[in-house]
Amino acid sequence: MAKKEKKIKFPSELRMDLISGDWVILARNRAKKPDEFKNPRSKKKGRCPFCDLKEQNIPVFVSANGKTIPRYKDVPKNWTVAVVPNKYPALIPHFRLDERTEGGLYKKMNAVGFHEVVIARDHKKQLSQLPTKRVKEVIDAYQARYLDMKDKRFVNYISIFHNHGPNSGASIAHTHSQIITTVLLDADFKNALDGAKKYYQKNKECLYCHMTKYELKAKERIVFENKRFVALCPYASKMPFQTIITPKKHLPYFEEITEEEKTDLAEALKAVLHKINKGLRNPSYNFYLHTAPCDEKNHDYYHWHWTVLPKIQEWAGFEIGTKLEIITVAPEQAAQYLRKQ
Amino acid sequence: MAKKEKKIKFPSELRMDLISGDWVILARNRAKKPDEFKNPRSKKKGRCPFCDLKEQNIPVFVSANGKTIPRYKDVPKNWTVAVVPNKYPALIPHFRLDERTEGGLYKKMNAVGFHEVVIARDHKKQLSQLPTKRVKEVIDAYQARYLDMKDKRFVNYISIFHNHGPNSGASIAHTHSQIITTVLLDADFKNALDGAKKYYQKNKECLYCHMTKYELKAKERIVFENKRFVALCPYASKMPFQTIITPKKHLPYFEEITEEEKTDLAEALKAVLHKINKGLRNPSYNFYLHTAPCDEKNHDYYHWHWTVLPKIQEWAGFEIGTKLEIITVAPEQAAQYLRKQ
Repeated sequence: MAKKEKKIKFPSELRMDLISGDWVILARNRAKKPDEFKNPRSKKKGRCPFCDLKEQNIPVFVSANGKTIPRYKDVPKNWTVAVVPNKYPALIPHFRLDERTEGGLYKKMNAVGFHEVVIARDHKKQLSQLPTKRVKEVIDAYQARYLDMKDKRFVNYISIFHNHGPNSGASIAHTHSQIITTVLLDADFKNALDGAKKYYQKNKECLYCHMTKYELKAKERIVFENKRFVALCPYASKMPFQTIITPKKHLPYFEEITEEEKTDLAEALKAVLHKINKGLRNPSYNFYLHTAPCDEKNHDYYHWHWTVLPKIQEWAGFEIGTKLEIITVAPEQAAQYLRKQ
Repeated sequence: MAKKEKKIKFPSELRMDLISGDWVILARNRAKKPDEFKNPRSKKKGRCPFCDLKEQNIPVFVSANGKTIPRYKDVPKNWTVAVVPNKYPALIPHFRLDERTEGGLYKKMNAVGFHEVVIARDHKKQLSQLPTKRVKEVIDAYQARYLDMKDKRFVNYISIFHNHGPNSGASIAHTHSQIITTVLLDADFKNALDGAKKYYQKNKECLYCHMTKYELKAKERIVFENKRFVALCPYASKMPFQTIITPKKHLPYFEEITEEEKTDLAEALKAVLHKINKGLRNPSYNFYLHTAPCDEKNHDYYHWHWTVLPKIQEWAGFEIGTKLEIITVAPEQAAQYLRKQ
């Protein structure tokens, strides 16, 4: 305890829970003052900060009607999708992690990483209301940014996610996704990677491939299908109407997605979101990607997929305390209902 | 795949996720029909089902002004705290787990267990508004039910939790807690137990004891303290204003709590909930117990504690997808704010 400790002030830090080994991100420059939490669900008023890109940081990706604009000076007037560094980033680029202790007991390090926002231009429409080619353009942006960041220092995982609606955690209504890079992987995701790896080594087949084939035959949990993708409600869904969208082919690395696959994924994503909107009356939802880490190791055993989670139920004390989720709609029943929409 | 599979219909089942090994509970008899999710946040109207115990299952515990009523025939008119089996249980008592597979691929078993509701009589008051002796009486009920259930078959863990407010997952406004027993422990909690055990074996001291001593000296994350308990915002909080209430003494098994400890715990719980209500303008919250499992094994290394989580922020796509939580208020700042309330 008497050891000398480096005093470093970095605006975002990663702190480790001593018991679980889990990390949390303390993002001070996104902070509200404590008493601002008194009205946490109040809406900000005024102009939308995503409609005029001049209010944002300089874009790192811009496209117009499906065409990526190379080395632009000014953002073209006809931009349709743009990616900007988040003005209030949770993770911040830096050249050192500065792993250190506090009180000889706790562990922390700088929360180093990139935090970007993917903006689709139309303020009024959510993804499911955009044409498939525009959804594909959003996926183009995901891929382009992934490829640009994956080999950077301290980038071992890239999380791409989308929050929609007041109960989703979204603070701005204008349709946008986010990309966050992290140096570390959470124990839960490591556990899922290990599970996938063991299955692959034992069975010489990917578990997702096996499961997808089984589900396509059984049919009861399928929500949507096209040439290259299948959307289904997983057998052990953690939320009612949870839907995953997975390529039929074994694809470990999202960033290697082809043009044809992007079009089919856009179609599947649009279809699933449309069914959720229609069937559940426009609920809040989150969707996120799970893909192989970009940590230089071989993850050929993994199979990337998107998870769509409608926020129609709160995780309560039991679920948070035990991590055993209670669902009240069988995935078979959920899929049957969504298929009909 | 061609194996014969037992067809068993049990109203609640545990289903395993093949990748993570996590289990979920599918509770069919709590089910809404899918289209009822269209208005998930609408309130049920009519008489409160917890005000008149005659509408409930036969109580398994009744007390009146702190006195437990033994072998009552009718519920006494002056009851103050009662425990009843949940009318819509997520887990159901049964004499067999019937572990089985589906499609030669998926694993499931009967979701066997007890699911009870702890009701404090006063409809209008939440726990923090009740006198300390009444909060203690609720804790008496927790302990009595724990002791009654812990040696029953298929009871390896007992989860006690409380949901308050519209964003907490509570479906009934009348103040109540719940008790659920499970046959299995989730990977996350097993991981926490392992972490605590390793620390204990290596350091000949419990990690919670060590941490509590450190925090009491450092002071900055302390929210409340009395003779036997301390409430603090953990160094790696997963939510802003997360507060844990932990005994100062090393106590692995919650069910062994003494009368004096119950009074001090009641005081600490009431104080923390009051501060959260006052400081954050009566938010929804959950609180839950983590204690040593009742699986016949030795868990002397563990240290029970309660976690109070105000629901002032949603877990969004990033947090759900990566399990890396982003907090925007430092635990030091949160504790300082709560101390002042």
